[in-house]
Parts: sequence; structure tokens; C-alpha cells
Amino acid sequence: MSTFGKNIIISLFGESHQEAIGITIHNFPPNIALDLEAIENKLLLRKGLAEISTTRREKDHFKIISGFYQGKTTGAPLTFIIPNCDINSGDYTKGTIRPSHSDLPYHIKYQKANDYRGGGHSSGRLTAPLVILGAISEQLLKEKGIVIASRIKSIGEIVDTIPINQNCVKSLLNDSFPVIDSKIKDEMLKQIKEVKNNGDSIGGMVETVIYNLPAGLGDPFFDSVESIIAHLIFSIPGVKGIEFGDGFDITKKRGSEANDQIQIINDKITFLSNHSGGINGGVTNGEPVRFTTAIKPTSSIKLPQKSINIETYENTTLIIEGRHDPCIVPRALPVINALTSYAILDLLLERKF
Amino acid sequence: MSTFGKNIIISLFGESHQEAIGITIHNFPPNIALDLEAIENKLLLRKGLAEISTTRREKDHFKIISGFYQGKTTGAPLTFIIPNCDINSGDYTKGTIRPSHSDLPYHIKYQKANDYRGGGHSSGRLTAPLVILGAISEQLLKEKGIVIASRIKSIGEIVDTIPINQNCVKSLLNDSFPVIDSKIKDEMLKQIKEVKNNGDSIGGMVETVIYNLPAGLGDPFFDSVESIIAHLIFSIPGVKGIEFGDGFDITKKRGSEANDQIQIINDKITFLSNHSGGINGGVTNGEPVRFTTAIKPTSSIKLPQKSINIETYENTTLIIEGRHDPCIVPRALPVINALTSYAILDLLLERKF
Amino acid sequence: MSTFGKNIIISLFGESHQEAIGITIHNFPPNIALDLEAIENKLLLRKGLAEISTTRREKDHFKIISGFYQGKTTGAPLTFIIPNCDINSGDYTKGTIRPSHSDLPYHIKYQKANDYRGGGHSSGRLTAPLVILGAISEQLLKEKGIVIASRIKSIGEIVDTIPINQNCVKSLLNDSFPVIDSKIKDEMLKQIKEVKNNGDSIGGMVETVIYNLPAGLGDPFFDSVESIIAHLIFSIPGVKGIEFGDGFDITKKRGSEANDQIQIINDKITFLSNHSGGINGGVTNGEPVRFTTAIKPTSSIKLPQKSINIETYENTTLIIEGRHDPCIVPRALPVINALTSYAILDLLLERKF
Amino acid sequence: MSTFGKNIIISLFGESHQEAIGITIHNFPPNIALDLEAIENKLLLRKGLAEISTTRREKDHFKIISGFYQGKTTGAPLTFIIPNCDINSGDYTKGTIRPSHSDLPYHIKYQKANDYRGGGHSSGRLTAPLVILGAISEQLLKEKGIVIASRIKSIGEIVDTIPINQNCVKSLLNDSFPVIDSKIKDEMLKQIKEVKNNGDSIGGMVETVIYNLPAGLGDPFFDSVESIIAHLIFSIPGVKGIEFGDGFDITKKRGSEANDQIQIINDKITFLSNHSGGINGGVTNGEPVRFTTAIKPTSSIKLPQKSINIETYENTTLIIEGRHDPCIVPRALPVINALTSYAILDLLLERKF
Repeated sequence: MSTFGKNIIISLFGESHQEAIGITIHNFPPNIALDLEAIENKLLLRKGLAEISTTRREKDHFKIISGFYQGKTTGAPLTFIIPNCDINSGDYTKGTIRPSHSDLPYHIKYQKANDYRGGGHSSGRLTAPLVILGAISEQLLKEKGIVIASRIKSIGEIVDTIPINQNCVKSLLNDSFPVIDSKIKDEMLKQIKEVKNNGDSIGGMVETVIYNLPAGLGDPFFDSVESIIAHLIFSIPGVKGIEFGDGFDITKKRGSEANDQIQIINDKITFLSNHSGGINGGVTNGEPVRFTTAIKPTSSIKLPQKSINIETYENTTLIIEGRHDPCIVPRALPVINALTSYAILDLLLERKF
Repeated sequence: MSTFGKNIIISLFGESHQEAIGITIHNFPPNIALDLEAIENKLLLRKGLAEISTTRREKDHFKIISGFYQGKTTGAPLTFIIPNCDINSGDYTKGTIRPSHSDLPYHIKYQKANDYRGGGHSSGRLTAPLVILGAISEQLLKEKGIVIASRIKSIGEIVDTIPINQNCVKSLLNDSFPVIDSKIKDEMLKQIKEVKNNGDSIGGMVETVIYNLPAGLGDPFFDSVESIIAHLIFSIPGVKGIEFGDGFDITKKRGSEANDQIQIINDKITFLSNHSGGINGGVTNGEPVRFTTAIKPTSSIKLPQKSINIETYENTTLIIEGRHDPCIVPRALPVINALTSYAILDLLLERKF
Repeated sequence: MSTFGKNIIISLFGESHQEAIGITIHNFPPNIALDLEAIENKLLLRKGLAEISTTRREKDHFKIISGFYQGKTTGAPLTFIIPNCDINSGDYTKGTIRPSHSDLPYHIKYQKANDYRGGGHSSGRLTAPLVILGAISEQLLKEKGIVIASRIKSIGEIVDTIPINQNCVKSLLNDSFPVIDSKIKDEMLKQIKEVKNNGDSIGGMVETVIYNLPAGLGDPFFDSVESIIAHLIFSIPGVKGIEFGDGFDITKKRGSEANDQIQIINDKITFLSNHSGGINGGVTNGEPVRFTTAIKPTSSIKLPQKSINIETYENTTLIIEGRHDPCIVPRALPVINALTSYAILDLLLERKF
Repeated sequence: MSTFGKNIIISLFGESHQEAIGITIHNFPPNIALDLEAIENKLLLRKGLAEISTTRREKDHFKIISGFYQGKTTGAPLTFIIPNCDINSGDYTKGTIRPSHSDLPYHIKYQKANDYRGGGHSSGRLTAPLVILGAISEQLLKEKGIVIASRIKSIGEIVDTIPINQNCVKSLLNDSFPVIDSKIKDEMLKQIKEVKNNGDSIGGMVETVIYNLPAGLGDPFFDSVESIIAHLIFSIPGVKGIEFGDGFDITKKRGSEANDQIQIINDKITFLSNHSGGINGGVTNGEPVRFTTAIKPTSSIKLPQKSINIETYENTTLIIEGRHDPCIVPRALPVINALTSYAILDLLLERKF
């Protein structure tokens, strides 16, 4: 389903090549003066670096058609609409199955009635309303001092090994291609352009950190913080893995290396490490929450691929022209931030007596 | 929360050192003759190999107190209860914070009122009712020919590199320590015993495969198959990562290497590879669903650790005696299977008009 | 919240005097050729009889911005938008509390930020998207032979005593003021006009019947058919009571009079009466489901009322000019039908293995 | 389903003639010292007056098997179990359909596998765990000064016309047969005994009032206070109608009579009447919430009734012996109070930022 949430319920709608896309946000607190400029800035970040992004340049001019009056949220359902303007549906042929796209499973699931153009409802376009959601969530989190930031950890085999820390966060926040090591950043960009020139695509990893979270958020079992974040992150097109704290690497460690020992230092409870990524037993422990997301190479490539036409039921060789990013990592990053902000806001609104 | 599900709703309850643990399963289909022996066998697998497991040997004798009459499900809520018998609460001292356990975050979250003994509600004990849930879910999946199996992929640095395939599945299903390469299995067991003798613990990975799933299960966005499985798997204590298909490795590939090309061969739609792990756009494509779970080393170790007592607010050096597994990987594996079976059953029950 | 549903999830949005109102319908079956004319006809019925209705004449031209392609539902979220055109916000003064309206509780709930004009999100306007929801739900119910119809049972003290039956249903369906006894209908209309001329308003009752429902829908306890229908009907502005079958009258009967005895007649299970209104133990028994809804007189009247201005915190005498129906009963009736159709469709989509 | 709730999620289980019944309450606040004696007192009230109640005298000794440690809630799921002791299943014959009972619809819904003895999961027995839920909810409401009380408004045609008011509430709270007018109470009891002697049964109405609710609880549309209370109340076996404020009577009034005018008196916002029953636009306005519930005569009567045996598919004349109340009104009343307390507590826990 395209709804989610326990406290702030979201309802996402739209398809890539229809009139508009949008989101309705239920139970957002009333009387909040929304920072519309901050929303626009986040939407801009989502477009990625012009030099390596798709040439489909949607303006992403949103309008608020409900829940907003005299510059403030009214408490009624908050609906944002983004019209689809720059549509070029001629690029899509009915029946052509693009490898590793949703074309085939949706064709079956929706009894051939799905709007196949541009991936329909599963299009990356739909992440624009999610970025709006993230922007207004972040605005509330800021009031509590909570900061969420991500960096590109790797592109293909090129890895940024400098650990993320609270000092570099600010510079990451407004960067369309946030990498900590600037030399590595150049290598990554070069790599992407090379791949692009070959008509191919490439994947990468994004690392995300949440600072200043209070301890005690989340639940044992089915609403662990990991469960909720993972649920949302896996809804972003192209995500194939997620790990918290030391993640897959922790499997290679001994308990004596992996445990985060604790001491009272200067009268403050202090963790001597953060292998757990700020979560124990599903609940935040007060340390920064840290997770890494694996993003696959863009499925749309210009190289010839063996495929089929499901309407004619014939084999074909497919070359995807259209306008596509050779690497969706920098464009997925603001969406990861957005859904993380929303996840944390929803957790913060937990029942209180 | 300790509830989950869209169609079959589960409600998990109990704490490690109280009278009983259990689960209520709502909307399980009526008129099903439950295979009680199969449940017992699964509970046995969950205990792990005797030689490397905790010496707390709960009998796990369950009773059904609701929803079952004359050998069949009645359609009413199905409640299973497992009494806690072999309790040794003397092992737990109030206020002692065990590193990388839920002790500290729960102390804060539950205003010091949580039952700290044995981890309370977050205890691994609670996975026993989940294994019951899995056993009865699996019984229904079998009717549709769906098979779910897991193998230990790694323990520490020791990796089983033989790819999983449909032929070896049967032998994996009833093994307390399922590894495909028997030589690797011996090495793993040796490694675990070594770690145990040192008073330390070790982690590992579990790989899971689902065969014969129909295409078309799951949804775009917030109920992608990855989202739902990840949500449940991250509720298992000790899980720190999950990846689908090629997972984190896919980030290093080009699109031309990562895409699963398709051909009609012998009049059948045939995928030439399965890097996607059987899911595109959140929806199953008919190929086997494949994922890998990262499990951390057991947090309870007998080696000295720096820690605190939260009641006295003093530093302390902690040596955890109690009875604990040096490696929870083989015991987490049947729980992964169980929650996967339940996830798939819930997806199969999706609205139909 | 403005979301509802187990299988088909709805998300309602909009405020009376903002740009647009609308609804997103999640999980509506794909590949359905929507009957757009039927939607328009239902919207027309919702406007009521011109002679006794508000002079705010919204055109209710809807557009579908998502989930609909080439005349059919795609399976993606289905979003209908109705622009607000004929807005006359000058009628509303900030701070004026209209007696028995939502003005005061919303002012408190939403921290003074609610859009008070025309009742904001709680406006009767918002029932237009619900009527669209009902129209497309009804289209699917028709395929299964299920018929839902309502009649005006009473206006003030004037009661239509002829029992509803399956023969008169058709004529009720397309009537803006459906009454079975035509003489009573004239009296009712006369009464409403009289009240209107006095600047006052009047209430009434609506009786609803559902024919050809299969037995076995609904659940014991919290999802009884009565619970679900009542939940939805009480969300219609102005509803103050609901009763099923003989309802409040059954409290005056003996069990021997109130019970519905059963016989096998001509090899068919036959109920000898239907005091239960087609539901036993929360579940349909195969008989027609029957319920009656109590609707209060319109709160907006042109007669002077004692009230306050919450901004100036002063007493005032209020005469509500604006454009309002003297009786909302005929306009609530199509909304009752609509939500009943949706409720039944959602129940029919229940999990099936 | 037998689950409910947004903030405090409940999971009800058990069948009349199986081992036990019970409830799990998720998200109940931690660190609450439960008043176990208050629970016992409420369970006693639920048994009704001995002279007019069923001779099935369950002891209703409950035990808490989870979520309670050292006299306080731990924050983990709170599970109460009540063993079924005094079972006399010989009273029930397979296949006999009791008129106006759930026998027939459940037989169909559950594919003949339902536990038909004593109504199975739909038995009035299941209201005992709900009364426990109500008792602990009420304990929290008391802290906020909120008082919930009910009185028997009518038995058959005998009506208690004295209006309920805050002074008489205390005496209602601990009465097994709370009627305000003591002469009417005697008449009612006489009537019930007469009916009992005839082997018949009788219905009645219960009026409920909630004092000291803050304004601003509830939501427009699908979570109006009326919607939520009605949803829960209709899950009580035997309920056929509910009305808020003046309810069905308001349909006979003019707007000028039905509206609740407002004035500032002694610097306090004061409603001059409460026809609305304390709710406008779905949200509490600060006045007492008031509603009336219609309860049908007990379906089990000792008089001969025409019925069928669904196994032999033959007509039969049924005389229900067993042990049954001639009037369930006084026993439904504490359940109405209990579910109302729970509903209000759930509303009070609403998201707060």
C-alpha cells in the first residue's frame, strides 16, 4: 500500500506520466509555519548534480491544496500536489519489459492495467512528495535539536573511508553530491561520467547518521527503530540492503569487540564505542543512530539487453533511450534523509499519557 | 508494539522470567487441522545444537487455549501459551547494565519499571512463540508448494561459498546447524567452541531462499516485499543488517552486470539471472526470493566488561555468568524462517475481489 | 483521522474554502472500467432538491489525477480532486462561534489555526468525495448483485410508515428526495419549506437496506458489521444516532417477540422475521441488513442565537446569513448510501486463502 | 477482528467452553501500580444481581501472565487470563441453530469449524476481559478527574425519566442494578422476574455520561468520538442501537430548539444546553458526553421456538434450557462503562508533539 505511519499517516499518490503526483499527510501538528523555501531547497537537492543527472527536468513546483491557511498548518490533512509537466511518453512502448524494472511484476499484479509509462506509480518521480514530507518533518525535528545527515559512502568500488562526524554534518546537508573526502568525490564523479559515456550505470552506498536523538524511542519486537527505518528505506526504488551500526561487519567480530561498553565519566553515562548504531533491543540508547543503505545501479541503461515484449510474447533486444541517471545514489540520498526524518518524527509523537 | 500484520494480525506477549510467554494469532483461516508435531519439531530446531547452546533448557511445551477445537482451527483468535519453567532469576541483579543489551534504553523508556530479568519482553525466549507462528504458516504455504529454507552463510570469517539451490533445501530444513559445505560446517562448529571456551561470543550470516512464490505479491512503496520482510527480520534480537538479491555487492556492479535479462525459452518467460533476488519494484517477479541477514555476536559474554550500575550510578566491571549461547546464529535461523513464512502468508491473503 | 479501511484504504482531504477537496483510494481493484456518468449522477443526487437546498451550487466537476489510465483503474492509488469554485468566504467572521458547529472544539483542538471558514475540513462539502467513493464501490457491488438503497423515514414528526421492500428500491435509487408514500413526501416538502421560511431548520431519519448480501461477512467483537457501518455513518456531519434492525424498539420486546425464528421451507433456510436487521453476533446472516440513521436539524439557522466571539471573548447575538440547507436529510442520504457501499466492499475484500 | 485501538492496542481471545479467555493490552503506560481490587469489584458488577442472573457462576479469578512485575506495569504487553471453570458443555448440541444467535452466520463464516458451544468466541463470557481493560483504563482516567457512569434507562416499557446528573453518579458506580428512581427500579426488577418465570426475556436501554472530558478530543470524519465509541459499543453482544445527546429525538426538533447556545458567564464559556451530547464536528466541546445504548432481549429463552438443525438439515422445535439471564441489560452496563473508559483513554493518548 501507499500509506504508512502510526501517528502521522501518509498517503502517497500519482503516476509518472499522469496529471500530477502528490501526498496527503494526516495528523501533522497544527499551527506550524511551514518553511516553504526549505521544501524547495530539498526538492532541488533531489534533482542531483546537473552534470550527471537525467535531462528530464521537472520543475517540481508544488502547491498545497489542503491543510494550510495563512501560512500555517491548520491540523486538517495536508495535501501537496506536484503537476507532471515535462512528460515524454513517446519513450515508452507498451509491452516492452525493461530488465530489473517493475514492468513484468506489475503487468501480472495489476492484470495488465498498470500505467506502464515511466514505471507508473513506482517511478522515482514519486520520491519528490516524499522529499516534501521530509522537509516539513525536519523542520519539527530541528526544534528538538535533532540532526539527520547522509553522505555518499561509495560509488562502485570507490569508497570514502573518512568516518562521518558531527563537525562535517553541516556541509553535507546542502550538497548535491555530499562526500567527505573531496579527492574521493572527484574520483566518484569521474567514474559516473565514464559509466554514463558507456551507456551503462553504477550503484553505491549511502551512510546516514541521526544526532541528538533521545534514548527510549522505538519498541521491542515489531516496531524496533531498525524495523521502521528499514521498512521505509526499502520503499525507495533501487534499495537492496540496509545495515545498522557495524552491520554486516559485526558478524565477523567477537562479542568482546562488538559490545559497546559503558562508563560514567564526568557524571555522565558514556558509551565507549557505538558498534550498535545507537539502538539496543530495538530502542534508541542516546548514541547517534547510524545506518548504511545499498543502492543498485540504475536499471535503465543504453546498452543492448535481452528482453521480451509481453504483448507480442516475443524475444527482443532492448536499448533504453529515454532520459535516465547513470547513478541514482546522489538522488536517492535526499530521499533517505526525508524518510528518516519522517520515521523519527512519527516515533517522537508516540503515545504519551 | 508487539502486534503486526495486515491480514493475519499477531499479538506477542510475555517476559523472560514471568509465568508464561505466548502469542495470539488473529484471522488465521478456520478449519485447518494443525500439525502439532511439526510445531514441536520447529521448536526443537530453535533450541540449536546442544553442544554449543545455552544450558537453559526450556521444554517449550505449548498449549493452545483458544481457537482450536477437535483438532482444527475454529477461526477465533488462536492463542498459544508456553509456560516459563526453568527460571533462574538469581542471575540478574537490578541496576546492572549489560553492554549492548536493552537494559539501558528500556530502563529509560519504561521509567525503571521494566522487568529487567533476562531482558524481559525483549528476551530471545519470545522467539519461541514466533516459531510456532512460523510452523503453522509454513503448513499453509506447503499446500501452495511454497518452500522457505535458510542456511548458515558464515560464522565470523568462515564462509560457506557453495551457492544455495533447490536440491539441497530438503536437507537444510531439519538440520539444527544447516550448512551446505560439510567441511565448512566442521570449521564453524570448531570456531564456536573455541570462542565459547574463551568466554567470548561470535556472529554470522544466514541466507534465506523462498521457492515457488507466485509473481505479483507485494506493493510499490510502503509495502514492498523487502519492506515487510525487513520489518519482521529486524524484530529478531541481534539482527543488524539485511540485503536482498546481490545486496551490498550489487553496489559495485554496472547496470549491465546487475540487471536480470529476460527471454522466452521453450514458451516460458525465463530470467537469465537473479541479481534482484526475485523482487522488482517491491513486487515478486516469480524468481526465488533471496536475502541474507547479519547477526551480531551474543552480547552476553563471560569476559570482563566496563559497565555501570544504574541504580547506584557507579562504574563497575561486569562478568556475565548466566547461561548463554556463544553464537545465536543457528538459533536465529529458525526464527528467520518462521517470520518469513508468516510474512509470505500474510501477503498471500491480500485482498481479492 | 481522515483515513479509514482495512482492505481499501481511503484518505480524505480538503477544506471548504481552500483550493480543492478530494480523496485517495488505495487498493481499489485494477482493470475496472469506471462508470464516470454514474459518479456524476450520484454527485447530482447529493445536491438535493433545488427548491429546498443551499444556494451554494458547486459544480462538483471532478478530475482523476492518479490511478486511472485509458478508461480503467491501474491499481495505483486512485485520486479524485474537486476544485472549490463558488466560494464566498466573506460570510465567515473569524472568532464567531456558531452554536452546535465544530467552531469551538476545533478552535481548541487545532490551537486556533484551523481554517474556520465554512467549517473547514468538517464541512459538508467533504461528503462529495465520499459520494464518488460510494459510486465506484457500488459499481463493484452490482456485479455481485448487491443493492443498497435508502429512503427518508421521517422529517421532524412526519413519518413514512410504509415498510421498505425490494420492489420499491429501484425508484428510490434515483430520487433526490426518496420517500415511499408520495402523500407523506408532499407533507415533508411542505414542512421543510415552512421551516425555511421561518429561518429555521429541521431534522429527520433515513432508513437504509442492503439486499443480497452473502452470509458470513463481518467479525465477532471489534469488527462487527454494526461496528464498521456505525463508525463510518457517525463520520457524516449531523448524524446523532444509528440503530440496526428493530433498534431502540427491540428494547421494549420480549425475546419471544424479538427473535427471528428459522425454518427450512422448500429446502431453503428461511427466516420467519428480520428483527435482527440481518446481523447476528456481528456477522451477516443472509437476510437484508437494515438500519436507521438520525440526523439533526441543520445547525446554521437565520434566527438570532446567543453566542460568543472567541477572539474578542465577548457575548454576541448571531444571525447566520450564508447559504445553508434548512434540512440536510435528503443530502445526507446519498452519503449514507455511499459509505455503506464502501463499508460492504471493504468487508467483501476480506482475506481469503 | 478481535483487535482494536490506535494507541493502546487490545487483543481479545478465548471461547466460552475452552480452557481460558483473556486479553493482551499493548502500550499500556509503564510504572502504573494496578488496583487489583478495583478490577475484582468491576468483575463482580458484571455478574449482575444474583436474583436475576444466570446460574453459571464463573469465579472470574484472573491472573496476569505478562507485563506486571512487583505490583506495577512494566510497559511490556499486559496479558490477563481468566480460566473457564464452570463449563457445562452438555447443554449444547451440534447443529442446533438458536434463533437470533451467531450460530448460523458463524457456521457459514467459519466453514463449520467454529466452537459452537456457548457461542464460542462471541459469548458474553468474553466481556469479562473487557471489564478488566475498563477497570485499569478507569484508574488512569481518575487521575485526570474524568468520571464515566451509566444507569439503566429502561427495561421493556418501564423508563426511568429522572435525568442523570453529576450528584447521583457516585451511587451509580457501585450498584449492580443502577437506576436513579428507586420506585422504578423495583418495577423493573419485578418485570424481569415475571419475564423470567415465563421462560422469556426482555431488553432495555443504558444511558452513559462522561464528566470532565477536556475539549478537543476526537477528529473530524473517521475518528469522530461518536465513531469510536459506537464502534466499540456495537461489539458488545446484544447491542442494536446507539444515540448521542438527544439522539433520535433531535430529529423531531427545529434547529432553534436543538442548537446549544453559548455565553460567557462569569468569564467562563458556558453552554446553555447540551442537546449535542458534548460533541460537535466529531470533537468534544468540554460538556459532558452523553449517549444511550439499546440492548435487545436475551436471545436464549426457554419458550419453544421454530428452528433448524444445520447438520441434519431438518426443522425442529427448540427449547433452550442452559443457564441464561432473562435480561442482559444490567450485565451489559459495566461492559459499556469499560469500553467507554478504554475509548477515552485511547483518545487521550493521542499524538502530542
